[in-house]
Amino acid sequence: MKIDFATLLDRVLELDDVVILIHHFPDGDTIGSGFALCRCLQKMGRRAKVECSHTIPKRYDYIVNSVEQKEFEPKCVIAVDTADFLLLGDKLKKYEGKVELCIDHHGSNLLFAKETYVDPTAAATCEIINDIICHISRMDDQMAAALYTGIATDTGCFKFSNATARTHIIAAELIQLGIDSGEINRIMFDTKSKSRVMIEKMAMENMIFTAEDKCALICITKKMREMSDAKDDELEGITALPRQIEGVIIGITMRERENDTYKISVRTHEPIDASAFCAKFGGGGHIRAGGCEIKGKYDDVAKLLLSEAEKVIASER
Amino acid sequence: MKIDFATLLDRVLELDDVVILIHHFPDGDTIGSGFALCRCLQKMGRRAKVECSHTIPKRYDYIVNSVEQKEFEPKCVIAVDTADFLLLGDKLKKYEGKVELCIDHHGSNLLFAKETYVDPTAAATCEIINDIICHISRMDDQMAAALYTGIATDTGCFKFSNATARTHIIAAELIQLGIDSGEINRIMFDTKSKSRVMIEKMAMENMIFTAEDKCALICITKKMREMSDAKDDELEGITALPRQIEGVIIGITMRERENDTYKISVRTHEPIDASAFCAKFGGGGHIRAGGCEIKGKYDDVAKLLLSEAEKVIASER
Repeated sequence: MKIDFATLLDRVLELDDVVILIHHFPDGDTIGSGFALCRCLQKMGRRAKVECSHTIPKRYDYIVNSVEQKEFEPKCVIAVDTADFLLLGDKLKKYEGKVELCIDHHGSNLLFAKETYVDPTAAATCEIINDIICHISRMDDQMAAALYTGIATDTGCFKFSNATARTHIIAAELIQLGIDSGEINRIMFDTKSKSRVMIEKMAMENMIFTAEDKCALICITKKMREMSDAKDDELEGITALPRQIEGVIIGITMRERENDTYKISVRTHEPIDASAFCAKFGGGGHIRAGGCEIKGKYDDVAKLLLSEAEKVIASER
Repeated sequence: MKIDFATLLDRVLELDDVVILIHHFPDGDTIGSGFALCRCLQKMGRRAKVECSHTIPKRYDYIVNSVEQKEFEPKCVIAVDTADFLLLGDKLKKYEGKVELCIDHHGSNLLFAKETYVDPTAAATCEIINDIICHISRMDDQMAAALYTGIATDTGCFKFSNATARTHIIAAELIQLGIDSGEINRIMFDTKSKSRVMIEKMAMENMIFTAEDKCALICITKKMREMSDAKDDELEGITALPRQIEGVIIGITMRERENDTYKISVRTHEPIDASAFCAKFGGGGHIRAGGCEIKGKYDDVAKLLLSEAEKVIASER
């Protein structure tokens, strides 16, 4: 059942001995939301902890270390920034059917919790947590750093169109609490691992252009991953590379999986529909970002994708 | 002579038949400041135009096209976002000694104009122009797009620590006027020319690490520039590449000039002083960004820089 903001505040004020679940492959928004709320509740004298199926990446240590880590048997289970129970991952399966409250900004939320507060106009769940903390308690600099992190990471550092006037006003309020936003952004956006740099270099080396450079394709092979020692989270956002190039309206990323299977990510600019492109290969997605899977040898799969791209671009003339 | 904000408003209200000078190698802030102010004055019924020593890059067309381009003999000369008369470039030399007013956010402003308003706490000159327009006229969406562009580009899209609470509040107000901030940021930050991508790839191919990967060095050779056909403005920010790598505290970029001369840019993280590093080679700069010039063959210059980096890093242990 969906609840309104006033009811949400009532529910949060009742929380005690609570475990806050965050989604697997945790990102800045789920981590910032979970830990800021946890710290707020702890400061109000409640017992609270955060649980995640995956280890939280080291770069978020300044957020993780802002809460007291004490073990206790939770009496209440809530989830933040999680649209689907499956996104909590394997380790949190034990909480199935037990999640009482979910706070989220994904319009696609499946309402798996007993009660759900969803605001799809919020750029990040951290915007909602910010509003909660402002209503029920006093924000401090450590909650502010956690919330700023989630807002910055979910908006590409205020770059995407989801960064609204409200997003900037919240950022202004958080910065006024004395957080070091420059340093947070340096950690989140200006630091690449050596293996990420290596894999980007290799990807650019094998980049193929077609349709008068309006389509660019890169491939991340298993061998490249072995050579660079890049982990899954180090590949985040690599699909943005081909579309970034001036003039490119279809950017394709192939990622080699087991048994001659390729995971394909397609990113487009106007007027190309990425979802329709991927539907031709049994996939789908949104208008500017789609995906599918194709079985075959590298050369054949690449040729298939490039000739489809040429066809689509030609039909737009 | 420096003037205060009240006097500045009086002066701007008196402007008519005015030419607004912007600095050479124009960036988003000088372009946004110049054209937003020009449009505001035109809307108030004044004759105004913008002049620049260099052609304004095509990606700023949406700003340039927001003003009427009519020729007239100016009776009054002002400059924006320009700390030194020399930065206006060769074509504007004719205005030497004639600049009546300069509006700027650089603390280093040399006060070359008869009257100067400087606010070094502003992240961008566009913040100051925003305040002026809010006081004397009515902001419209096209002025807002120009000002947002300057603020976003001078703060690395709100990433750097110069983006203050005030910066975010102004961004919120501009977004509320209906500008497409996502599209502006895509043009400014997510579009790379093919030659830029090529030169980045080549730079990464020849990257050298030393001192347990705490120092990374790249070189942009004349041959690489020829092969990639990269122009000067396409090399902007390339010096950030080596320092971006996790763990690197000294990032060095060598750029080959004529006659075996290399222009060296050094970017550092704590605790390395880039200015002190460059001073050893007759250069200088700031604590995190410095530069110098070294004559010699590539191998010798690289060896010299790497061994100095090893020494400096060893002394910090």
